[in-house]
Amino acid sequence: MTTLLPDLIATCETALAAADRLRAAAKDSVSALVVRDGRVVAALLETYQTAAHGYAWLATTVTALEQMLGWGKRLEAAGKLGELEALMLQAAFGEYLAQIHGGIPMSQGEIVRPSDLGLESADLHRLAEPAVQVLRSCGCNAAVRGRIAALLRDGHTYGEGGLGDETLTLIQDQFRRFADEVVAPFAHDWHLKDQLIPIEVVTQVAEMGVFGLTLPEEYGGLGLGKTAMCVVTEELSRGYIGVGSLGTRSEIAGELIRLGGTPEQKAEWLPRIASGEILPTAVFTEPNTGSDLGALRTRAVKEGDTYTVTGAKTWITHAARSDLMTLLVRTDPASTDYRGLSMLLAPKPRGTETEPFPAPGMSGGEIKVLGYRGMKEYELGFDGFTVPAANLLGGVEGQGFKQLMETFESARIQTAARAVGVAQAAMETALRYATERVQFGKPIYDFPRVGGKIAWMAVETMIARQMTYFSAREKDQGHRCDIEAGMAKLLAARVAWANADNALQVHGGNGYAEEYPVSRLLCDARILNIFEGAAEIQAQVIARGLLGGARG
Amino acid sequence: MTTLLPDLIATCETALAAADRLRAAAKDSVSALVVRDGRVVAALLETYQTAAHGYAWLATTVTALEQMLGWGKRLEAAGKLGELEALMLQAAFGEYLAQIHGGIPMSQGEIVRPSDLGLESADLHRLAEPAVQVLRSCGCNAAVRGRIAALLRDGHTYGEGGLGDETLTLIQDQFRRFADEVVAPFAHDWHLKDQLIPIEVVTQVAEMGVFGLTLPEEYGGLGLGKTAMCVVTEELSRGYIGVGSLGTRSEIAGELIRLGGTPEQKAEWLPRIASGEILPTAVFTEPNTGSDLGALRTRAVKEGDTYTVTGAKTWITHAARSDLMTLLVRTDPASTDYRGLSMLLAPKPRGTETEPFPAPGMSGGEIKVLGYRGMKEYELGFDGFTVPAANLLGGVEGQGFKQLMETFESARIQTAARAVGVAQAAMETALRYATERVQFGKPIYDFPRVGGKIAWMAVETMIARQMTYFSAREKDQGHRCDIEAGMAKLLAARVAWANADNALQVHGGNGYAEEYPVSRLLCDARILNIFEGAAEIQAQVIARGLLGGARG
Ligand SMILES: Cc1cc2nc3c(=O)[nH]c(=O)nc-3n(C[C@H](O)[C@H](O)[C@H](O)COP(=O)(O)OP(=O)(O)OC[C@H]3O[C@@H](n4cnc5c(N)ncnc54)[C@H](O)[C@@H]3O)c2cc1C
Ligand SMILES: Cc1cc2nc3c(=O)[nH]c(=O)nc-3n(C[C@H](O)[C@H](O)[C@H](O)COP(=O)(O)OP(=O)(O)OC[C@H]3O[C@@H](n4cnc5c(N)ncnc54)[C@H](O)[C@@H]3O)c2cc1C
Ligand SMILES: CC(C)(COP(=O)(O)OP(=O)(O)OC[C@H]1O[C@@H](n2cnc3c(N)ncnc32)[C@H](O)[C@@H]1OP(=O)(O)O)[C@@H](O)C(=O)NCCC(=O)NCCS
Ligand SMILES: CC(C)(COP(=O)(O)OP(=O)(O)OC[C@H]1O[C@@H](n2cnc3c(N)ncnc32)[C@H](O)[C@@H]1OP(=O)(O)O)[C@@H](O)C(=O)NCCC(=O)NCCS
Repeated sequence: MTTLLPDLIATCETALAAADRLRAAAKDSVSALVVRDGRVVAALLETYQTAAHGYAWLATTVTALEQMLGWGKRLEAAGKLGELEALMLQAAFGEYLAQIHGGIPMSQGEIVRPSDLGLESADLHRLAEPAVQVLRSCGCNAAVRGRIAALLRDGHTYGEGGLGDETLTLIQDQFRRFADEVVAPFAHDWHLKDQLIPIEVVTQVAEMGVFGLTLPEEYGGLGLGKTAMCVVTEELSRGYIGVGSLGTRSEIAGELIRLGGTPEQKAEWLPRIASGEILPTAVFTEPNTGSDLGALRTRAVKEGDTYTVTGAKTWITHAARSDLMTLLVRTDPASTDYRGLSMLLAPKPRGTETEPFPAPGMSGGEIKVLGYRGMKEYELGFDGFTVPAANLLGGVEGQGFKQLMETFESARIQTAARAVGVAQAAMETALRYATERVQFGKPIYDFPRVGGKIAWMAVETMIARQMTYFSAREKDQGHRCDIEAGMAKLLAARVAWANADNALQVHGGNGYAEEYPVSRLLCDARILNIFEGAAEIQAQVIARGLLGGARG
Repeated sequence: MTTLLPDLIATCETALAAADRLRAAAKDSVSALVVRDGRVVAALLETYQTAAHGYAWLATTVTALEQMLGWGKRLEAAGKLGELEALMLQAAFGEYLAQIHGGIPMSQGEIVRPSDLGLESADLHRLAEPAVQVLRSCGCNAAVRGRIAALLRDGHTYGEGGLGDETLTLIQDQFRRFADEVVAPFAHDWHLKDQLIPIEVVTQVAEMGVFGLTLPEEYGGLGLGKTAMCVVTEELSRGYIGVGSLGTRSEIAGELIRLGGTPEQKAEWLPRIASGEILPTAVFTEPNTGSDLGALRTRAVKEGDTYTVTGAKTWITHAARSDLMTLLVRTDPASTDYRGLSMLLAPKPRGTETEPFPAPGMSGGEIKVLGYRGMKEYELGFDGFTVPAANLLGGVEGQGFKQLMETFESARIQTAARAVGVAQAAMETALRYATERVQFGKPIYDFPRVGGKIAWMAVETMIARQMTYFSAREKDQGHRCDIEAGMAKLLAARVAWANADNALQVHGGNGYAEEYPVSRLLCDARILNIFEGAAEIQAQVIARGLLGGARG
């Protein structure tokens, strides 16, 4: 009995076209609700938010299939489409087509269906292709999941990622080894003790070039693209999300300065960021301002050649053990929206355990968190804290928000890669446990519910990975890609969370013991839907971008 | 614009009949896979586990609608079907019919669809009733969720539970007040400090009669039914799952002895359990034996009038601060399955912080857990621990497993009620936070994604509650009800987990701070899918019961 469908690539191609026709119909339908004169109307977008966000999820799901198909085709061309990869492609289509038809889970309890997008049963006829039918019924059924489970167990592989680039593969191997040897064995202990990642590990990460990965070589960086960033981030995060996140703030600061800094600012900061001599921290969120960042209140008043900063920030990761803040402040006191914001490059002395915030005019306190430990989060108070006026990013006030938004694209791609790493770790630990744990006389992996869960984890991790690579490639093209970055982040965060949840379930009671690393994975995974733009905000960005623009 | 459908009750009735016809078709289809000569064949049940478990979920979903309709009718008859309750009924039908049609989430990543049950598109015509169509498209759409959200905010009610019994309502009020005043304000602190629930609180709970709630008055109990147990448990768990779980082990021990004990055993133990003088602990699980309880190894050897116990147990809740173990052991060394098991009523001295297990032949260590703290979990070692032979439950060896299985029904109903309490707490805290937190110039509750999430939490909490009441009523009838208890536990655990997850999301970053109680709710909720029979085991019990038997 073979579970692999004949003519898989062609079948997927036909099915994708059908799915895309449904998406187009949904776009028309939702656009009719929220677009007037070719522009998205904010008030309507809010009124019909569920439909608009549902559309964002639908478009994300279709894009995921598109990317999986592209991956499958590239593998086939390279002679690398093995049975496992083919079944992953097939399962992705089977499950996601069924979701498109019957409901896409935006979250537990929020399932978006065609009728929520204003589509009628008649519109669903677009999905009435035989290719769609066969994929829906046989693409990802229990037999397919079972076969994938068998291949995962025996093949010592979780599917070929298809980087198709020798340098990237070398980098991947290098970081995988590092993560396995230097990170993973210790991560759980750092988490349980709620301690900072040892500075020696940070130094090693620096020496491996992580902090300058995407910075130009002239500034001491490696000059690599965003795909490399994704590969490195995934491997490190697979070891521990905390280590995979060490580079996030350097990526943000580095890109802010590279894109928006003056020549002097670039020369001053980029080499030291690239080398890891300087650890930056990203200081944006405030107690009353998270998603609505444009409304923030912390103000900076310029007198002579100094800005004086007053206000409160919160949720600032790695704030104590850092040397440079990318500090988003309001420089135009008359403004209330994003137009009055500016980005300051604010140096600060690195704190110690006993004196975390030794700078004059600055104070702070730790926020205890469920997971994502290792750098610690802080609330900060500024009262008369000073920054040289020369440290205004780009030298012109009022540019801060847009500078940041552009950089958020990279941060979100990087976050998607972190999610892929967490998703992969969850899948691997579930597989390991399930093949070792015996109940009812056999490894629980042999029970279809258990093996099937893990098979789907592996498939969906691959989907999230391909979405992440896709967004990275788009970003490397140099055009605005908040939609693609948002899609990758949105989907990968859901996948990481689902994987962690199911991996814990596979562990039974032991999953609930703090001693088992899977309990940490659950806690770590939960952040991904919240920070770097919560899931609802990503859906909003995607919906606004797609419904307003020419793109799908 | 009204969101309430006309002729709602009649429409739901028609739709339910259609859903039940689909269920019947699914039963035929899955039975063809796993039933031979009218009996479920274990090997086939395993091969087709996904279909069988999927059927269990389908049957559970249909039963949930049946119970919601019954609730709606009773409220209507009593003149208590307000707009909120009617919309809850309608939303339940809208969403669950859509799930039956398009996919029921067994877990994140495991969505069961009609095709997984061997049904063809033709079978779905059973759902092609206009009543089903209208409920699917308009029953729970964004407008309905929005209206429910508005009613929740303004009405100071979360929907009338429909107990329809004055005594129960009085009990509910009493325990709600107690939970609000004595439990909820302190729970988070107990959790964060990972401490035992103060003994004074245990004493108060005892004085309120919780430990003897369902025991006959002749033994000092209150002689109330399982519905009362559910009401009390829900309210206490709404305050804190730990307090709502204090009664679980007394319920198990009390019922074991009431149903299976000798007259002497009843007289000796029941009054002291009822009064709370004795705190029991339930000692079943072993390191290598969780779900497959019948295979356990801890052995008890009888010499003279003493059993000597040797072996290892684990995951024993409240083991240190307890006085009596219901200890499941193997008394027939030649056996390997459930038939060789017996239940011992094993007294033990109550432990202290410094000496948790002062009994000779007994040792133990604490297991640190994510949530569900307050009683603590332990692994136990027995080496020459002795129990008087007179303490064999019922006086006959080999009955232990069946005695326990019968009692598990009550424990699972009680666990379903704990889940309802947690689900309710999550919904309430999300509502409170969302109406207070302002972003983009308004309370986030006003955004459809946020208000809609909370509305559905309220609806699904009501569904879980009605399922729980239903299983309690069935148990009170005195017949075997592992199916109904399993359904209530299965569904309520999923609801509690989804609610906690979504409630945390509503809190944004703050939800991830240990300081906010919703972070604890997430951790607490996660246990419900694991203990008292993991979700996969419940599905197995339900499937086996339904497919083998005469019942739907
Ligand atoms: C562990 C951690 C680390 C962090 N690190 C940093 C850091 O280093 N630097 C930094 O600046 N920030 C950091 N943050 C902050 C993070 O970016 C914010 O938490 C995030 O942007 C969400 O903002 P909020 O918490 O204020 O949630 P809110 O904006 O209050 O949102 C609450 C809920 O409402 C929803 N919501 C809000 N608006 C809408 C709308 N219009 N429509 C529908 N739904 C809506 C949200 O999606 C969310 O579910 C961190 C947060 C955490 C938890
Ligand atoms: C906080 C906590 C408190 C507890 N309190 C107590 C207590 O007081 N007393 C006590 O005796 N026990 C207690 N337990 C133990 C609890 O009952 C067990 O954890 C539970 O029965 C599951 O068993 P397990 O952990 O061995 O998981 P396993 O049985 O090893 O199961 C692991 C996974 O495999 C799945 N699985 C197993 N068999 C099958 C199958 N045939 N088909 C498909 N899937 C399958 C399970 O559903 C689960 O997802 C507690 C556990 C916890 C975590
Ligand atoms: C909600 C949110 C998406 C947008 O908020 P908003 O106030 O509605 O802002 P807009 O989308 O209208 O954008 C404001 C301007 O920035 C521009 N902009 C937005 N995204 C951009 C991007 N990716 N690249 C370039 N410009 C961008 C817009 O075009 C607009 O400029 P315009 O008025 O000249 O057209 C944004 O506040 C956000 O991302 N919030 C989440 C915060 C976050 O991720 N925090 C993480 C901290 S670690
Ligand atoms: C998996 C599980 C459901 C059944 O295991 P099993 O070994 O297949 O046992 P069976 O279902 O065949 O039942 C064995 C016997 O008990 C009987 N039985 C089972 N459930 C019963 C019930 N609710 N009432 C009365 N008898 C029952 C069966 O009829 C059978 O007797 P029979 O052979 O005379 O017909 C059971 O081990 C279980 O519930 N595991 C989860 C453990 C758990 O919940 N632990 C929580 C600890 S806090």
